[in-house]
Amino acid sequence: MTRTHTCGALNKKNLGQKVVLTGWVNKWRDLGGLIFIDLRDRYGKVQTVFNPEENAEVYEQAKALRSEDVVEIKGTVSARPDTMINQEMKTGEIEIAASSFRILNKAKTTPFEILDDIEINEELRLKYRYLDLRRSSLQRNLLVRSNVYHIIRDYFYKNEFLEIETPILMKSTPEGARDFLVPSRNYPGRFYALPQSPQTYKQLLMVAGFDRYFQVVKCFRDEDLRRDRQPEFTQRDVEMSFVDENDIIRIGSELVQKVFKEVLDISMEMPIKRLTFKEAFERFGSDKPDLRFGMEIHRLNEVFTNSDFNVFSSVLASDGEIAALVVKNGADFSRKKIDKLIDRAKELGAKGLAYWKYQQGEFSAGISKFISNIETEQLIALLGLHDNDLILSAADTYETTFSVLGQLRLEIAEETGLIPQDAFAFLWVTDFPLLEYSEEEGRYMARHHPFTSPQEQDLELLDAHPEKVKARAYDLVLNGSEIAGGSIRIHTKEMQEKMFAALKIDKEEAKQKFGFLMEALEYGAPPHGGIAFGLDRLVMLLVNADSIRDVIAFPKTSSALSLMDEAPSAVSQAQLDELKIKLS
Amino acid sequence: MTRTHTCGALNKKNLGQKVVLTGWVNKWRDLGGLIFIDLRDRYGKVQTVFNPEENAEVYEQAKALRSEDVVEIKGTVSARPDTMINQEMKTGEIEIAASSFRILNKAKTTPFEILDDIEINEELRLKYRYLDLRRSSLQRNLLVRSNVYHIIRDYFYKNEFLEIETPILMKSTPEGARDFLVPSRNYPGRFYALPQSPQTYKQLLMVAGFDRYFQVVKCFRDEDLRRDRQPEFTQRDVEMSFVDENDIIRIGSELVQKVFKEVLDISMEMPIKRLTFKEAFERFGSDKPDLRFGMEIHRLNEVFTNSDFNVFSSVLASDGEIAALVVKNGADFSRKKIDKLIDRAKELGAKGLAYWKYQQGEFSAGISKFISNIETEQLIALLGLHDNDLILSAADTYETTFSVLGQLRLEIAEETGLIPQDAFAFLWVTDFPLLEYSEEEGRYMARHHPFTSPQEQDLELLDAHPEKVKARAYDLVLNGSEIAGGSIRIHTKEMQEKMFAALKIDKEEAKQKFGFLMEALEYGAPPHGGIAFGLDRLVMLLVNADSIRDVIAFPKTSSALSLMDEAPSAVSQAQLDELKIKLS
Repeated sequence: MTRTHTCGALNKKNLGQKVVLTGWVNKWRDLGGLIFIDLRDRYGKVQTVFNPEENAEVYEQAKALRSEDVVEIKGTVSARPDTMINQEMKTGEIEIAASSFRILNKAKTTPFEILDDIEINEELRLKYRYLDLRRSSLQRNLLVRSNVYHIIRDYFYKNEFLEIETPILMKSTPEGARDFLVPSRNYPGRFYALPQSPQTYKQLLMVAGFDRYFQVVKCFRDEDLRRDRQPEFTQRDVEMSFVDENDIIRIGSELVQKVFKEVLDISMEMPIKRLTFKEAFERFGSDKPDLRFGMEIHRLNEVFTNSDFNVFSSVLASDGEIAALVVKNGADFSRKKIDKLIDRAKELGAKGLAYWKYQQGEFSAGISKFISNIETEQLIALLGLHDNDLILSAADTYETTFSVLGQLRLEIAEETGLIPQDAFAFLWVTDFPLLEYSEEEGRYMARHHPFTSPQEQDLELLDAHPEKVKARAYDLVLNGSEIAGGSIRIHTKEMQEKMFAALKIDKEEAKQKFGFLMEALEYGAPPHGGIAFGLDRLVMLLVNADSIRDVIAFPKTSSALSLMDEAPSAVSQAQLDELKIKLS
Repeated sequence: MTRTHTCGALNKKNLGQKVVLTGWVNKWRDLGGLIFIDLRDRYGKVQTVFNPEENAEVYEQAKALRSEDVVEIKGTVSARPDTMINQEMKTGEIEIAASSFRILNKAKTTPFEILDDIEINEELRLKYRYLDLRRSSLQRNLLVRSNVYHIIRDYFYKNEFLEIETPILMKSTPEGARDFLVPSRNYPGRFYALPQSPQTYKQLLMVAGFDRYFQVVKCFRDEDLRRDRQPEFTQRDVEMSFVDENDIIRIGSELVQKVFKEVLDISMEMPIKRLTFKEAFERFGSDKPDLRFGMEIHRLNEVFTNSDFNVFSSVLASDGEIAALVVKNGADFSRKKIDKLIDRAKELGAKGLAYWKYQQGEFSAGISKFISNIETEQLIALLGLHDNDLILSAADTYETTFSVLGQLRLEIAEETGLIPQDAFAFLWVTDFPLLEYSEEEGRYMARHHPFTSPQEQDLELLDAHPEKVKARAYDLVLNGSEIAGGSIRIHTKEMQEKMFAALKIDKEEAKQKFGFLMEALEYGAPPHGGIAFGLDRLVMLLVNADSIRDVIAFPKTSSALSLMDEAPSAVSQAQLDELKIKLS
């Protein structure tokens, strides 16, 4: 082909050159007898001018051009008149005096304009995704995403990690989320599963001695999708041998440091802050606190030990927790607004929400009359109160008290504009509980996954107090989103058996599902651990996108539909017959 | 953790240093009162020595160590005695005087020794893949593969290609091979398909204006597997806008040039040779000729125009072809050996195989008596005969004559050791037929795929002589294997409709399957084309592996089984119920 330059490449250095450009008609204007066409491609835009005095025939033909037509334009690079220089455009000092053009493909009128700053119904955007992707914001998102792949791979390559592909057609061993299944034609009645993560494979790669592995890999979960989930998602997956938590945390930290430096030119403060799960939960009511703002939760049990207030004293008597948030200048909140917060707290599972105000050195409103003078003094100091503060307090079970306040903290911060939009607050959360009880399953489930190692000092608790056992697990949190999670793994068969026992997975089931892994642990498995980054979410935060769908080329809807090609779709009876399956 | 060095990292510069190493016991010897243990990790091996005079207790404990135990050894880097220096080993000048060690994990006796030069049953290797992968040849294969990923990505990144991920859960549109299907839970009775290639998506990325796309991507085909196929395979996928065949061929050539330079330090001769499909077929009887050796096929129709030999004259009368191969020094072949070649030719579909010998200036044996003097003279010149040559000739339909001789050419070269094992012969094959007739389907099928553009000058033949239409398609061949294939695509709806009509895909079906692509072509689709490399095969040729399974971490058998985890496997009734499917 004959393109001599891309549309963003020309400037004053090219003056006088004869060029051939290709691209899309971005804007078409007929001004004072001249036709101006902005030609667009991925690299930029350039203005072309058709002048009837130069070539009347070409000028006439150019009148037929319309937005999004694909054209090849030949012409000469000319300086723009001084008054026409556009400093906003890379090519704004020049224009192309067109001598001829060729239509490479005509375009119908598009169902929406190819512009960034217009509201388009998302269904329409997804149906015509190839047009949506022409918008410069989505072009940029995918460009950043491509750069992130490169930065990540470069980092791992330089640090002697091997990139190894693991299978997509694997064995179904659902433990937690639901597997997508793939019927086998060769073995009717048997199924492959798509990986929820390459967990077992990467552990086997450590047993195989590869020492440092990484992969950028598609993972799949057949879940009812929450707003920002996709049935297939991309994971940056890492595993290392002969390491402990600190080694992995260092690698994970360096990696995000590098990504943020190279993509946004932001120098992160190192080392990244760390909180244990317990600290995170008791100070922020969350295992993934958003540290872009303060408004920490404070435990008030000690203050209210002798409280006469019935609600507080009964909660303390039943081993519950009293805690509070301080809303700066919240004393101005209307009664209606406060009632809404109380309703919200109840919706979140709390029995109620106590509040009072601090104004002119005194507590007022809400439950202030139940607070003694001594308690008042202690609270002013403990909560660091300032005039006009509103105090919101929950008194409930440990779990409910902190989680409800944590959620209110987020919502109030959001509503009151407390969250700086251009800040990036990183945090490692460590020492997660190993297990959590599932009412639905009537048993403990692995909080991370069943291959996560318990902490040595908690091992003796595994039988009697499984809920107290801490895991060698860690998450990386950015602005309140978990962007990575990992753990040191179990590397002996004995420990893995104990773990399965704690999960009430009996020996037969363990063998049938994970026998190959258990056996592998007996043939010289090194101590190892790893981490997985959610790449979609990381890129979303990097480009400040509203939705994860805006950083994926061809996303699905929240009901896992592809609106563009209408997948999933019916298949032929012949296809089903070959697989020996029937619809029921 | 405490590893100070990896096992391959130490040399004389480290003398006297106290080190902590971790790894696998590779070899254990008790020699003259000293215990020698070679410790192994991915980076190399290092000899450690346990001396009872230094520490009797540690020495005694070390007696319990066995092959493949995972240990941490502390000690001091010492020079080996001159007579013990091992020049073959990176660390061969030093050894570690061990002061203590710790068993990190004991290993059972492995089902096979972790050695390269032993024959192991492949089923056993695949069942214990994590042990098989410890062997240095497989470690190297995956290291090379990892490097190839990096080289490829680096090349594309530097050339302004964007890496974009396309969906794995897509729409089933089988055209050629069979799709793997994934039942949808949200939409019972509907299915996703796993991609046979990201073809439609990458074309839509061009419509979206991304201009240069690449991806290293898993693809899937549910086919009955030939020896060296896998149900999932890795493709290095590329698409470009505003290009023609030569642009893509240049990019593809530069890429392999770079890979071969960086991995094997081989400087390829550029440009890579090109043959049209017709030339390749008529000179080598194949669309992927192995050019590591000569033994070309020669057309003999002109020589035998007036032949009295009935077989030849009747073939010529029915528009068939006569052609021949010359086997250097083949006049020595025994009658039995020649009979076997004749049988083989018949097995391959020929009616027979004529032969004669050239010795001392004369033709003898076989059909020599039917060859006239004039024909003899012409043949000696045309075939460039030398004393003791054997001539093998087929006379059959065009297709059979060349394909049978092409196959015999390969087999004879293999058998007579004519193929230089360390040579790499690259070739672009171009101008493929657009269509080929399928007896099974009773219609023409796309030889490449239905989105491949016909050549402009052949368009008028599409209705009357579809078999004569050439495609804008090209393959890259290395040593007789196709390692890449691609084409310039159809970029207008009109042409795509004509193509579907030629394939007897009616409008309704075309719309139902590919409506979204057809529609996209109407909204400003640029001229575009691309190529896809088979990454598994490329790596296999680079490392000279016997099987594609030797360059894949966790391959499946030829019946698509994973012997390690036993996928595919049965799933629970609950899983099937949720998907609303039944086994029949």
